[in-house]
This record gives sequence, structure tokens and C-alpha cells, in this order.
Amino acid sequence: MQAIIDANSGDAVGYGHDAYTKRATERFKDIFGSSSDVYFTFNGTGANVVALSCLTQPYEAVICPATAHLQTDECGAFERFAGCKILAVPCDDGKLTLENLKAFAHPSPQEHHVQPRVISLSQSTEFGTLYDPAELRELCAFAHAQGWYVHMDGARISNAAAAQGLGLREATRDLGIDVLSFGGTKNGLLGGEAVVFFERSLHRGAAPFARKQGMQLASKMRFIAAQFSALLENDRWRSYAAHANAMTNLLESRIKNIAGVRITRAVQCNAIFATLERQAVEMIRRRFFFYVFDEHGPEVRWMTHHATRERDVADFAEVIAAALR
Amino acid sequence: MQAIIDANSGDAVGYGHDAYTKRATERFKDIFGSSSDVYFTFNGTGANVVALSCLTQPYEAVICPATAHLQTDECGAFERFAGCKILAVPCDDGKLTLENLKAFAHPSPQEHHVQPRVISLSQSTEFGTLYDPAELRELCAFAHAQGWYVHMDGARISNAAAAQGLGLREATRDLGIDVLSFGGTKNGLLGGEAVVFFERSLHRGAAPFARKQGMQLASKMRFIAAQFSALLENDRWRSYAAHANAMTNLLESRIKNIAGVRITRAVQCNAIFATLERQAVEMIRRRFFFYVFDEHGPEVRWMTHHATRERDVADFAEVIAAALR
Amino acid sequence: MQAIIDANSGDAVGYGHDAYTKRATERFKDIFGSSSDVYFTFNGTGANVVALSCLTQPYEAVICPATAHLQTDECGAFERFAGCKILAVPCDDGKLTLENLKAFAHPSPQEHHVQPRVISLSQSTEFGTLYDPAELRELCAFAHAQGWYVHMDGARISNAAAAQGLGLREATRDLGIDVLSFGGTKNGLLGGEAVVFFERSLHRGAAPFARKQGMQLASKMRFIAAQFSALLENDRWRSYAAHANAMTNLLESRIKNIAGVRITRAVQCNAIFATLERQAVEMIRRRFFFYVFDEHGPEVRWMTHHATRERDVADFAEVIAAALR
Amino acid sequence: MQAIIDANSGDAVGYGHDAYTKRATERFKDIFGSSSDVYFTFNGTGANVVALSCLTQPYEAVICPATAHLQTDECGAFERFAGCKILAVPCDDGKLTLENLKAFAHPSPQEHHVQPRVISLSQSTEFGTLYDPAELRELCAFAHAQGWYVHMDGARISNAAAAQGLGLREATRDLGIDVLSFGGTKNGLLGGEAVVFFERSLHRGAAPFARKQGMQLASKMRFIAAQFSALLENDRWRSYAAHANAMTNLLESRIKNIAGVRITRAVQCNAIFATLERQAVEMIRRRFFFYVFDEHGPEVRWMTHHATRERDVADFAEVIAAALR
Repeated sequence: MQAIIDANSGDAVGYGHDAYTKRATERFKDIFGSSSDVYFTFNGTGANVVALSCLTQPYEAVICPATAHLQTDECGAFERFAGCKILAVPCDDGKLTLENLKAFAHPSPQEHHVQPRVISLSQSTEFGTLYDPAELRELCAFAHAQGWYVHMDGARISNAAAAQGLGLREATRDLGIDVLSFGGTKNGLLGGEAVVFFERSLHRGAAPFARKQGMQLASKMRFIAAQFSALLENDRWRSYAAHANAMTNLLESRIKNIAGVRITRAVQCNAIFATLERQAVEMIRRRFFFYVFDEHGPEVRWMTHHATRERDVADFAEVIAAALR
Repeated sequence: MQAIIDANSGDAVGYGHDAYTKRATERFKDIFGSSSDVYFTFNGTGANVVALSCLTQPYEAVICPATAHLQTDECGAFERFAGCKILAVPCDDGKLTLENLKAFAHPSPQEHHVQPRVISLSQSTEFGTLYDPAELRELCAFAHAQGWYVHMDGARISNAAAAQGLGLREATRDLGIDVLSFGGTKNGLLGGEAVVFFERSLHRGAAPFARKQGMQLASKMRFIAAQFSALLENDRWRSYAAHANAMTNLLESRIKNIAGVRITRAVQCNAIFATLERQAVEMIRRRFFFYVFDEHGPEVRWMTHHATRERDVADFAEVIAAALR
Repeated sequence: MQAIIDANSGDAVGYGHDAYTKRATERFKDIFGSSSDVYFTFNGTGANVVALSCLTQPYEAVICPATAHLQTDECGAFERFAGCKILAVPCDDGKLTLENLKAFAHPSPQEHHVQPRVISLSQSTEFGTLYDPAELRELCAFAHAQGWYVHMDGARISNAAAAQGLGLREATRDLGIDVLSFGGTKNGLLGGEAVVFFERSLHRGAAPFARKQGMQLASKMRFIAAQFSALLENDRWRSYAAHANAMTNLLESRIKNIAGVRITRAVQCNAIFATLERQAVEMIRRRFFFYVFDEHGPEVRWMTHHATRERDVADFAEVIAAALR
Repeated sequence: MQAIIDANSGDAVGYGHDAYTKRATERFKDIFGSSSDVYFTFNGTGANVVALSCLTQPYEAVICPATAHLQTDECGAFERFAGCKILAVPCDDGKLTLENLKAFAHPSPQEHHVQPRVISLSQSTEFGTLYDPAELRELCAFAHAQGWYVHMDGARISNAAAAQGLGLREATRDLGIDVLSFGGTKNGLLGGEAVVFFERSLHRGAAPFARKQGMQLASKMRFIAAQFSALLENDRWRSYAAHANAMTNLLESRIKNIAGVRITRAVQCNAIFATLERQAVEMIRRRFFFYVFDEHGPEVRWMTHHATRERDVADFAEVIAAALR
């Protein structure tokens, strides 16, 4: 917030040719390597679409889990913008496996079929689960052996890296990821995401144009950039994310023994999925807003963030307990 | 063929404003009802894309089996042209079920998700299997109750209708189908398909433009139309298709007892799927061309058509038997 | 700014289901009428694309001046997103004329040609010129008689309304405009635009989906909405815009007699176009940033905004004078 | 016709893997050089879209005359399929000039603007006029100096080459053309066009996929290919085209002195444009079909083709004369 206030004083040149954007870009290069090429966008769908559309021709396809945000929650933005097909792989835990990839690896391309070109995986996943570094290394190696790129939807990469005790580069580029959608909005920003190509050559000059055509070029980009500078300074990204993760751990410890709450997915970051009876869901939602992830169950998703307080967690756990009494 | 030769004499006005097109269109209306609206196209992908793009907005989606030609063999033409997402349902036999549809029926649409608008099913399916009339009636009724349209990829609808002893209208419109891609090329034409909207209002004026934009408007349309007139006269469509089906039945009877051939799908029309050892496949392919449908197995697809002769079937069965001896 | 700070306290539900968005939407309805339907977007390109894509099918076209931002400065975003053709009309002053429209009015649509469906005009124009109300009324009436919609790119509608002494509704809907891209970023916001459909039926349910697919749906929408509430309260939009216009008038008066400066377009809002010798342009740009609009000339564009001070104008005029001495 | 009849005997492998397609492809390579890469399509719009979409990214643009078939008569197929903008240049005679191109040559690309990548010109033009070889050489050289490709819409290239006494390669590749849409349907074929990339590297592997996605891949491709083999053998393309041109010359000589007929464009190939009074137009159209090109005038277009007979010309001229008496 303070970063935006600071950026609001004085005039600045538009469309990213300003000192705030330059500084934030430098911070990204410091972290991910000087060959990185960074593009700020407005939201996560925009980041994913800009990233993926730079890696694909319209007859090429993206492989992702059927549960990916890209597949389920972006209203087909990628298909509409890029004209490409998404090859969605059924899965239980939000994660691609090597077996999944092998099914798409064909030696002789034919014009009748779209050609896989990118795999897109989310870290942490939409179920709050994590790929461990060895898994990612193996998936990336296999993809690269096919001539495919690897995109990470990192809307919550900070939470993942914090949970695994890794640096941002260690958790992404060093494992073989080619392009990262780096999440800001879900880690404390008022709004803003960043697409990071770890090599400029990956987008073959397309990225500035894809961002503009994708309606993601901010004329007053300094307000996004200034937030990212603040987030990346003093490892603020990590402290925010670690706090969110800790609050989820706290919540888990408070509710796991409540009769009637069944935690349904591994709790590894800042999300808990659970089933409980429908009536209790309704009671709790009168006090707190959250999504019912799956009406069957019903299965709910509870998340914490950088500003969640211990007291909030305690209150919430208490409301849950009361609802189930 | 003779129909084309006849159409080649004399001048004619272009782009479908000719007597041949008028006559063929009338034949379609005689069969499918006078409210039908017919658009000739060059090929099956073109027919499917024209049909489906007239029924959808870019944020709407098409539900189809994961094995549909639309999903697997059209190189993403629909996504590129219409910008829409295809929701592909895993299946074993090429057929959608009521359960599949129920999973997509949501009462409250949200902007985060594409909205199902059409189901597309193939009759006969890509596995040579058939929906029976009661199945189709039930699927159509459910779809209509959701406000969805039903498209049939009828590249082989003639084979299906012939196999079930139904008329073309009985096999389609009367069961609840809204729009039909009527196959010509796979039933004896040199080239040409037809999109039949059973009510003109279904495409809301879009069809002529979609066909032109979809690069499917023939300037010399009479050469496609004349073939369709010939196909629809004297139930020629049925005799061609019934012959193809009979030849497949003959082939099945000749090979089902050959040791080493395992027929893998119900044989209901003019296609046989079978697994046999790889070496035998190679030997047979030296004499006859056919597709290996799935390299695992390997599973092959053997098809017959209107011009397949009994002698061809006998020769082919003999070559198979020899390869497996 | 203060509006954002206020919106930053406390939790809020995402994607526009919050009190800030509700309040801002109400302010728009107060001004433009209760049948209005408002969609906040991130930037002006996003607003134009969302607006126009809801009014067109892919075989329909948008008529606009060849100098429109839509045609020249949005990197083909509309064509890529909507697949539509833009019919750009050559013009000298940024304005469409009735003659322009008549050339596109055809009684009998043919599938060979895209079909005009919307005219898009900018007020004020990209040259800082204005349509007067009678002109707009006549263009809208002609368009409606053809069954066309009228979209206004109102990135600077506040400046136009302020210059003409009109209310926002008087300057738009009351003249026949159907859909407005209402500019925020160019009138003091940190970032944010609004698409206003004056009747909900105009977008036929497409607008929420088009905004999401168009990557313009903010999860933390309250930060855009809060800015708009502030802008629309106490006629702040008018005082900001009127100030910007006044500063341009002041600048004009200071420079019009400087030898070597030739003002090239009518000065009616907050922009001055002028030619001056290339060397002087370079000298001035060492001190102040502005765009060279046309390298031939060279013709420059000088603009003022809500925060431009009299002293800034005086300084700038002095630098110009010095450069030309 | 005979070529199709021959191709109709016996079975053949589909999708172009047949002997007829191989033979026709070889004929193209003989004529245009062995590095040529040929793709048969169904119609001219399909050929243009496949050609141009292989040369462009969605943020790149095609420069063409405002009168180009691509711009006026393809219903925006290219925009919809490729998502690209067309930069249409106003012109009087259907031809691009060097001045036109210079206006689009910018040294420093900016993300706000689409980037020109291809110029597309028609030979003969939609007005029946011709670029002479020196003009084409100059345009191509300029385009290549900017890093642009040159596409020729050669729906009537045979007529142009015949009129100029050039070989097909001399009239295209040797002048600097990169990719040619080679017209078949307008020079005697029942249906079929060919896209010829003069170097395979020009399409970077995209052409087979673009043709399939563009719904232009014929399963029974031999019927198109066989026609092209026949057209290219024994210089049949030239005799057909030269005959059509001669018939137009004959028609011109018969009508140029009829009072009331004003020939409006240079007659250089097989088209005559003329104005005459509306009532006469109606009378002539009762006997012969032709297009009224421009209702103002009215200006009509009269064309001849390979099968036009001297007697047809004489009859037509007589009807014109009678209508104006």
C-alpha cells in the first residue's frame, strides 16, 4: 500500500517506461537470473494467457491437469485468445504425472492432431497440494526431451516455496521451469501479476505484443511495479506466504479433531479442503465467506492469507465447532 | 460421378444460386422437413465447425466424447475458428451417457466458467458403435431441458440408419437432434458434406456467413449439390450404406474365428476394430492400407465402403489368415 | 488515492461482489439511468474490446475512423479477441461523418461481405476535437435506422462533457449512444475503466463472460470501484476534466504566438497538436516527455491533466519559447 | 473433367498420400522450382487464409489494397482464422504502390501497433488490371528490405502470365513473390486451388496444420490434384487463360463503340468494367448473368473464361447493343 502511495507522487512516463517498473524488473532479474524477461499484467488469467500464447502456435496444445485454473476457472480465455486446444488430464490431486505426459509423446506428428507444445502445472495446486522438487525436475526433463516447454502457474508459488524452504529460483527455474506466472494478488498485492520468461528467446519477440493484445498493458504500470518491488524486498514475499501457511496449519490443528469435519486433501500450503454436513456449511457461511468447492459432499475450501490473524483463525474454528455441535 | 458430368455442361450462376443446388436442397427438405435449412460444405471438419459455430458464443462450450472426431481428428479447427472450449468426456465406446451430461448441468452460471451450450455426438461413432434410438431420445430430452442444443456428427449417419432400419429423419430429427452434419464423402461422394439445421431459427442468420468465413462456400457449388441429389434419389444413400455394412458383416464372419484376431468393439456398422500381433499387422499392411488406431495392442481399424466387393473382403480375410498362420 | 486506502481495510468478497463495487455501480446508475449495466475493466483497450465484442458476431464489423485508438493503438486486440473486421474510414479530424456511414449502408446483406453492426466513435477524439451534440444525434439516428449500435470510446468523455457544459448522460445516452467506454485512467484514476451498456439487453448476457474471457475481471475489484465512486462524487469528474481543459487553454494562449509553433488541429479539450522544427522538438523533450504524433512535420501532441499546475504550463511554454529562439 | 473420371477408378489412400497428388505436386515443382512446397485447397479464400496465416503471428498485419478480394469478398475469414488485422490501402486501380508501402515502414516497432509482416497483391487485380514485372520487382524488393513477405493472390495469375507472355515462374517467384495462391477454379477446374510456398522454410512447418485447421484438407485429394495435373500439362493453363483473354479482347472490340457503354478500367486480361444506364443493365441481365460491381454508375463487370465461345461474345455484344438502342 505504501508503495502505491509513494508511486503516486510526481509525473511518470507511461506503459512501463518509468523508474518504478525498471526497479521492479531488476528485482526479478536479481532473483531469477539476468536472462529473465519480465512482463507485469493485471490478473492471473492475463498472466497465464500471455505466457502460454507466446509459447504456442494455434495448432499446438497445452497439457494441464483437468483441475487447473487454466482449464476450469478462466472461462476459456486461452482458447479464445490463442485459438489453441487444451488437453486436460483427469487427476485426483491437481498434479500431472509422468504417465500423463507419456500418453501425449508421439514420434511422428500428423496434421490431423493438435501438437502438444507446453505443459502447464500449478504450484501449489488448486487443491493446495505440492509437487516436490524431484517430481518437477522429472516432469521438466521429460517435457524438454519432447521439445515441449514447461509453464508454471505460480499464483501461489510463494506459498509453495515458503512451505518447502526454497528460494524462488530454486523452486522454479532451477528445476527446469521455462516460464512462470508469478502471483502477486494472492500474496498481498492490491492487484498485479508478473510473467517471467527465464530466457528472453522463449517468446521470440512476441511477449510485448501478446501483453498489449491481451489487454494487460497498464498505462500507469508503476502502480503494479511498485507493489512488486515492495513484495520482493526483504523477502517480504516469503514472510507473507509463510504467515499464510502457518495460519492454515493453525487452523488445521484447531479443526482436525472436530467431529463432523473431514479434511479431504493433504494440507501443504495455505488451503484446507474438507467435507462437512450441508447445514453446518450454511451456518458457517453466515459468518465467514468461503467457496463451496464441490456441491457433492459438500466439500469446502478454506484459505488463509498474509493478513489473516491468529484471532481470526480461532474465531473461525470456534464457529465451525459451534456449527457442528 | 455421372451427376458431376451432367453438372459440367453449360454455364451456371455461382455460389449456390443454381438449379443443381436448388434441387439438392429440395431433396433434403423432402427428407428432413420443410423447415430444414441446408448448407453444403467441402469436408466433414468444415461441416462440424460451421454447425457448431452457429450454435455457440465464444464463452460457451461443446460437450462431446473424448474420442469424437471433433476432439481428436480436426486439429483444433473448432477452437481456432470459434474460440470455444470443448469439454471432452472420457469414454470407452465412443458414446456419451446421461451421467456424463448430468455432470455439466449447473443451475447457476458463473462468469468464471465456460457455459455448456451444445452436445455433439457421432452416429455411428468413431468406434463403429451405435446409439440406439431410445438412448438418443433420452440424451436429447435432457439436453433440451438444460437449454442445450444437440449436434450429430453424421459422417456415417447413413450407415447407422441403414443398420437400424430407420429413415434418415427417423434417425435424427425425430429423436431430438437439432443440427446434423450429413456425411457424403464417406458414402460414395467425390467430396462434399451438408449441414442441416432442422429449424432455420437455430442459427439465427449466422449460417451463410459462418460457411463463407469457414472457407466452405464453393463457387461452383453445383458439383457438390449434384452429387447429393444423386445420393438422395432412389434411396441410393441406403443401398450404398447397407452394402458397406453387409461387407463388414461378411468380413467379421470370415475373420472372427481366425486365431490371433481379437475383435475389440461391437461390430454394428461398417467398421471392425481388432487387435492382432504387430508383425501380422505389418504383413497385412504391405497388401492393404488401413489405420492402426492405437499403437498399444496394436489395435487396427478395418472399414468397408459402398464399392467394396465380396471378392475384396475374401482376399483381405485371406491375407489376414495368412499373416497369422 | 484516499479511496483506495479506505478500500484496503478489512476483508472483502472477490470478483465484484463487494460493497465498494455495489456503491460505484449505483453511482453510475444514478447518472446514466437505472437500466444501465456497468462493468469495470483494467484498461481502455479492455473496455473497448469487452464493449464491442458483446455487440458483434465474428462476421460482423465495426466502423470507425482510421485514426481511432481502436484501430491504431490497440495492437489489433479486438480482431484477435473477437475475430471481427474493423472498417476504418480515412478522415482528417478524427470524426466520422454521415457520408462515411452511408457508404456502408446496404439493403441486401451478402455472405461474401462482413456486415457492419457497430459504429465506434471517440469523444473527445484522438485529435482532441469534439463532435457537437447535433452531430452525434444525427449519426446515432442514422446508425439505428440501419440496425447498427453506437459505441463511444469515452476515454476522455469527461473532458468533452466539461468542455461542452453537458452532463455525462446528456453527452452520451441522451444523444443516442448505446454503449460507453467510460475513461478513468486518463482522468485521475490510478487505473480503471468502465463499460456502460445503457440497456442490459444490448449485450444479451454476454458481458460478464466477455469481461472474464477478456482478462478484465479483477479479483479485488473494490480497488477499481472505490476510485470510480470517488470520481463520480461531488462532480469530481467534471472538476478534474475542466481543470485539464483550462490548462490546455492556458497553454494555447501562451504558445500560439510563439514563432515556429503552428497549431494544427482545433483545440477543444485537453490536447494541442502542433508542428515545429525537429531540433526544437528534441530540445523540449530533454525537459518534458510527450509523444511525437507524426514524424512528418514533425507533429507533436501536448496534453494536460487533472494535476497539471499553472506553473507547469508556464514552465513548459517557456521551454518551448526558448527552444525556438 | 476427364482427369477426375480417371482418378475415380480404383481405391486410393486418403488425405493426399496418393499418386495423383504426388504427380500434381511434381508438376508444380517442375514449374516453380524444387524448393517449392505445394498445398491444395478447396477454394480461393481457403488458399489465401492458409498462405497468410502461415506467414503471420496474430499481432502482425497484412497490407493489401482496399479493393483486394481478401479485404472485400472473404467475409473476414482471415481475421477470424488468424486474428490478425488487415491494413487496407485505398486505391483506384486495384494496385499497391511503393508509396503505399513506405507509409508502413517504421524503424522502431512498438507494442501499441500491429506490425506489418506481409503484403498481399492480386495479379491480375480485382479490376482486371496488371502489375507489370518491373513494378512487382520493385515492390518485392522494398518489402523484403523491411523483412516483409510478399503474397500473391493468383486466382487469375494464369490470365496475367498469358497476357504478359510470361511463364508462371517468371511471373511470380522470379520477381520476388514468396507465396502464391494459384487459381484453378477460375481457369477451368471444377474446384481447387493451390498454395505454393516458394521455399518450404517460409511456413516454418505450419502449412499442413494450417490447411487442416483451415478446413481445407480434402480426404479424397486426388480429385483436386488430378485436375491440376491436367491443367499444368501441355501448357493447358496458358491456352485456357489466353483464350479467356482473347474473348475479352473480342468483346471489347465489339462494344467499345456502342453509344452508352463507357469502359472504366484498363482492359488487360479477361475482365471489362463499364458503366451504362441502369435500365440497360436490367435488360441485359434478363439474358446474361453478371455482377453489378458498383451500384453507383452503375458499373458492371463482364468476364470471359476458358469455355466462352466467339458466338457467346457476339450474342452478348448484340444484347448490349440492343439494350442501348
